[in-house]
Amino acid sequence: MKEIVTRLLAERGVTLVDIARLVYTLQRPYYPALSLEQCLANIDSVLEKREVQFALLTGITLDMYAEQGLLPEPIQTIIARDEPLYGIDEVLALGITNVYGTIGLTNFGYLDKTKLGILAVINDNPQAVHTFLDDLVAGLAAAASARLAHNGWVLLDE
Amino acid sequence: MKEIVTRLLAERGVTLVDIARLVYTLQRPYYPALSLEQCLANIDSVLEKREVQFALLTGITLDMYAEQGLLPEPIQTIIARDEPLYGIDEVLALGITNVYGTIGLTNFGYLDKTKLGILAVINDNPQAVHTFLDDLVAGLAAAASARLAHNGWVLLDE
Amino acid sequence: MKEIVTRLLAERGVTLVDIARLVYTLQRPYYPALSLEQCLANIDSVLEKREVQFALLTGITLDMYAEQGLLPEPIQTIIARDEPLYGIDEVLALGITNVYGTIGLTNFGYLDKTKLGILAVINDNPQAVHTFLDDLVAGLAAAASARLAHNGWVLLDE
Amino acid sequence: MKEIVTRLLAERGVTLVDIARLVYTLQRPYYPALSLEQCLANIDSVLEKREVQFALLTGITLDMYAEQGLLPEPIQTIIARDEPLYGIDEVLALGITNVYGTIGLTNFGYLDKTKLGILAVINDNPQAVHTFLDDLVAGLAAAASARLAHNGWVLLDE
Repeated sequence: MKEIVTRLLAERGVTLVDIARLVYTLQRPYYPALSLEQCLANIDSVLEKREVQFALLTGITLDMYAEQGLLPEPIQTIIARDEPLYGIDEVLALGITNVYGTIGLTNFGYLDKTKLGILAVINDNPQAVHTFLDDLVAGLAAAASARLAHNGWVLLDE
Repeated sequence: MKEIVTRLLAERGVTLVDIARLVYTLQRPYYPALSLEQCLANIDSVLEKREVQFALLTGITLDMYAEQGLLPEPIQTIIARDEPLYGIDEVLALGITNVYGTIGLTNFGYLDKTKLGILAVINDNPQAVHTFLDDLVAGLAAAASARLAHNGWVLLDE
Repeated sequence: MKEIVTRLLAERGVTLVDIARLVYTLQRPYYPALSLEQCLANIDSVLEKREVQFALLTGITLDMYAEQGLLPEPIQTIIARDEPLYGIDEVLALGITNVYGTIGLTNFGYLDKTKLGILAVINDNPQAVHTFLDDLVAGLAAAASARLAHNGWVLLDE
Repeated sequence: MKEIVTRLLAERGVTLVDIARLVYTLQRPYYPALSLEQCLANIDSVLEKREVQFALLTGITLDMYAEQGLLPEPIQTIIARDEPLYGIDEVLALGITNVYGTIGLTNFGYLDKTKLGILAVINDNPQAVHTFLDDLVAGLAAAASARLAHNGWVLLDE
């Protein structure tokens, strides 16, 4: 199922390298020797979790249906317009971020607010509906960063 | 929008009185003078919150689309079969339960596990997809119970 | 650090076998071949997570300090009396439950409400303050159950 | 109890005006007519919630006890050093942020990462332990911003 999710992300305009760049930007200041490959490997591990796959499949499906005008009102308009009080996109993203503990929260919020890298690209596309996608990708990058931080600690701890 | 949500719940087989009965069962032991009307009034207040309305609209839409076979695979099969590891239904319900603080968590889990009252009815319907509905209704009853408990405290406190 | 946490739990009256019995009761209906050893192994894995260790250390410290009357007011009285609206005990437990996804929520709430097994024992001790302990132990059992359910799925999936 | 909490914040170096300035910085771009008084009024409403008061009392007590070296090891060192993987400070702050829905998450993470205004002041004090305080204050500002955003919607909606 990881392949389905990875393909779906790519179809929506987000490659794993795009997400790895977010992780790299976030974590480089703390790990000067960090490579993009290590960031990719951590994203790969996050994407193996069922809960993460389910959140991505659900949120991206809602984006795509809203984009094609297939949802019933009033939820069609709410998702299509990325209504700021909707909140369900953040709820799904939180499900991803939490798989490596709450230390991911800070990075999730920071990415979601500053719209770093690929997040600005998907957010600025006027034809597409990316109400869920930007939060889910920020959640993925935050979870991968948390995993990296936990492993760093484990190494220091041994 | 509260009317749209109330109507949607009724179309899916759940009246506000059904939910009030869950609140009554949960809270009666602590408040012997509790009436069904007070339970209904607390549900009414919970239903006024945007976040609650959005969670209900989103989850019930996913149930209805899965019931009609309208979702893409693999999410269609996952939701239609109420796959036990899906977890996104609990995530949405948590968004409802949390509006009156984490004290609602315990009641949410208890209702979701024991399938009290209306929850057993919607869960046992073999034709319908109620993957989200049972969690959302349990979340609503838990949030209304938490609101009631908070107000009880406030009264004693003044 | 796992040894410190295990010893601390034992000093507060909870052995890993007590927690394994909760997992066994919850999961046996779904896995008839389940053994107590498998339950113990899953608790062991949960206890290896930093976030879980930190939640246990923090909550049990607050219990012990409240038991000895060492906290400042009003938090001393609130924790010592297990004030029903306190909610911070549930928040910490949620940090444990979430490490294996939100599917643990239901079992956490159910255990916290029904006070199965060891939970009734620690809850009925009038000399001790176990405001955090019962929630943390319920959270541990729920997380271990979620881990078991995820692994069951993984096995079926391969 | 709101007065106790407000006084405790002040003793730890944070006035309600400091927090109002954070809300103002976050929300001004969306509401050009926003005044500092409105920000203060929203913080005041957030501080009336029991769950918020309890989170503040618990976290600040842990900070103060760690500052005085009163906690048992290993939790004393973990909190005193603001160990990056601790995560319990974020968990408590999340309990505050969530009272006005998950839309507060983004602002919480952004504040916690960028250490705006008063957050930098309390974070840079080498004598004090503010492991919980910075997260709790960021959570308060995020919750007040979410309340403001919800009320803005309500006004437009009527």
